[in-house]
Amino acid sequence: MQVFNFSAGPAVLPKEVLKRAADEMLDWHGSGMSVMEMSHRGKEFISIAHKAEADLRTLLAIPADYAVLFLQGGAIGENAIVPMNLLGDRKTIDFVNTGEWSKKSIKEAKKYAQVNVAASAEDRNFTYVPARETWKLSKDAAYVHVCTNETIGGVEYQWTPDVGNVPLVADMSSHILSRPIDVSRYGVIYGGAQKNVGPAGLTLVIARRSLLDRALPITPSAFHWKEQAENESMLNTPPTYAIYIAGLVFEWLLAQGGVAAIEKKNIAKAKLLYDYLDSTEFYRNPVAKSDRSRMNVPFKLRDEKLDAEFLKGAEARGMLQLKGHRSVGGMRASIYNAMPIEGVQALVNYMREFEKRHG
Amino acid sequence: MQVFNFSAGPAVLPKEVLKRAADEMLDWHGSGMSVMEMSHRGKEFISIAHKAEADLRTLLAIPADYAVLFLQGGAIGENAIVPMNLLGDRKTIDFVNTGEWSKKSIKEAKKYAQVNVAASAEDRNFTYVPARETWKLSKDAAYVHVCTNETIGGVEYQWTPDVGNVPLVADMSSHILSRPIDVSRYGVIYGGAQKNVGPAGLTLVIARRSLLDRALPITPSAFHWKEQAENESMLNTPPTYAIYIAGLVFEWLLAQGGVAAIEKKNIAKAKLLYDYLDSTEFYRNPVAKSDRSRMNVPFKLRDEKLDAEFLKGAEARGMLQLKGHRSVGGMRASIYNAMPIEGVQALVNYMREFEKRHG
Repeated sequence: MQVFNFSAGPAVLPKEVLKRAADEMLDWHGSGMSVMEMSHRGKEFISIAHKAEADLRTLLAIPADYAVLFLQGGAIGENAIVPMNLLGDRKTIDFVNTGEWSKKSIKEAKKYAQVNVAASAEDRNFTYVPARETWKLSKDAAYVHVCTNETIGGVEYQWTPDVGNVPLVADMSSHILSRPIDVSRYGVIYGGAQKNVGPAGLTLVIARRSLLDRALPITPSAFHWKEQAENESMLNTPPTYAIYIAGLVFEWLLAQGGVAAIEKKNIAKAKLLYDYLDSTEFYRNPVAKSDRSRMNVPFKLRDEKLDAEFLKGAEARGMLQLKGHRSVGGMRASIYNAMPIEGVQALVNYMREFEKRHG
Repeated sequence: MQVFNFSAGPAVLPKEVLKRAADEMLDWHGSGMSVMEMSHRGKEFISIAHKAEADLRTLLAIPADYAVLFLQGGAIGENAIVPMNLLGDRKTIDFVNTGEWSKKSIKEAKKYAQVNVAASAEDRNFTYVPARETWKLSKDAAYVHVCTNETIGGVEYQWTPDVGNVPLVADMSSHILSRPIDVSRYGVIYGGAQKNVGPAGLTLVIARRSLLDRALPITPSAFHWKEQAENESMLNTPPTYAIYIAGLVFEWLLAQGGVAAIEKKNIAKAKLLYDYLDSTEFYRNPVAKSDRSRMNVPFKLRDEKLDAEFLKGAEARGMLQLKGHRSVGGMRASIYNAMPIEGVQALVNYMREFEKRHG
């Protein structure tokens, strides 16, 4: 059966990538080895890692004065690793709180620094991005932290904040590579790979090199950006197979026409789903229209007693993992790069049919 | 061409495991999803993770009062994470220094604690394990740290140290699952997966539950053993695909007859290679016979000018990644669980032939 996988992450990967991974599993390019079996210091794997980095640099137009690191620990790991690496002799970090992932970052940063919540969307249950004019930044912050796409709340920045000379740090886990970004406007961009990049267990960090001398003495070497940058992410054994799969995803993205081309598809997919949601009272998405995520679309049925039946019917039609995050309930359709528009159309068709039956 | 991969890690995996991974890449058990695409909180992946943990518990006879954690960051990550989790209100850690990996652990621990080197094999260039009687343990150590198999030096503990009531912590990265161990003699066992367990990017931690309340406040949540134990290693998104592959390796090991059966094979493989090394002056392994590693066999040619030709001839015969670690030079044959005895025999045959040509 054709399935459409709406998981928030780990998430759907391009079929072409999975086919190639299967084909190459026992013998990568005549080497006689699986990529999983290769020494990370051998010429075969080095070539894979270099190509992955080069393709990522192409896709996001990453300037040369930014280091690209392939690390481990995911965004929750980075929530501690970022302050360890960036605090230097400052004491305070400014945060903008747009939801669950912002809250996780704040909780973790408090272990190492004073936290100033410069703006929060809590007053409207995290359904919008506070306008830049409302942010109350502190004078001496080490950096300003934002989560540019809240995977659970479905809230996305459609603009890049200007915070002057203070480094802007963005958790982009769930929308990186879904749209062009101007990397030079950020000090650090990080994210877990398991949405638009590749398998879980790989963490991307893109950091302006001039910021790499601020690590606290307690920073573990494995997560020390400067040491990792000097060692091309091989101070410790990197997650080699996950880097290989990410590299295949990057090749696939380039073949699709790059990030600008995939953005057009993502806009079309999101429009299809939101337009339908806005056309009915049967379902509801609570997010301010200007701040809706193209990647994660949470919605609730008017009558939550129908949730179980909705999910059962979806699964019977091959539409998987639509259940909302346990902290908010309802449904969530994650429609990352690798979700074809046919999947979104199938979901809308089913939602319409379900509404007709119960509306 | 049939190849034999002697890499120290990432390393050879059982062919059966790779075949199954290739077969299941696009559709795991009729789910329509790759394991890489599954939500870590979905029933499919939960079943994979539970089975992997249960099989590992069977293989190592892990007592119920030990937590099994599937984390990230590798042994170099754990070198910081272990002291963060175990220091509590103590100030000192006792280390036994048997080589490169001990030194890495010591360097990292100094960020968080006072280090007492209770014994060191540096006096004989790290070619032996200091006898227990010579260890000068401190009075108030938080724990005693050993590296039970030095991957670079090729030195292995053939015995379990008795350190009284102080927790014994062992980095077993490169020989875990190669032989039976009495887990109850250790407070914590940890290791990177990329030798005998599975792909790089997965870290095993086996910790006595009564030790889980000693974490420092600076411990990142993603690496906080108690929090991870309470969340079945899913406080953050775990490296799902690496856990799946590790689970396939565990199934393979059980099918081989378990760890006691694989130990017999490992003893036979190591004997074949060491017996030959001891029969000639052309090659040399420097390690004390009682402390030689069954997993990692470093050796040097009498005439190092022949190194390049030796490696070239080996590669032409499909014997890969025999080059020694850059810090020591020479050769290293890593002969983990998944290396068949035919590979070791092929290596010895080639070494004998090479000796005849140049001896």
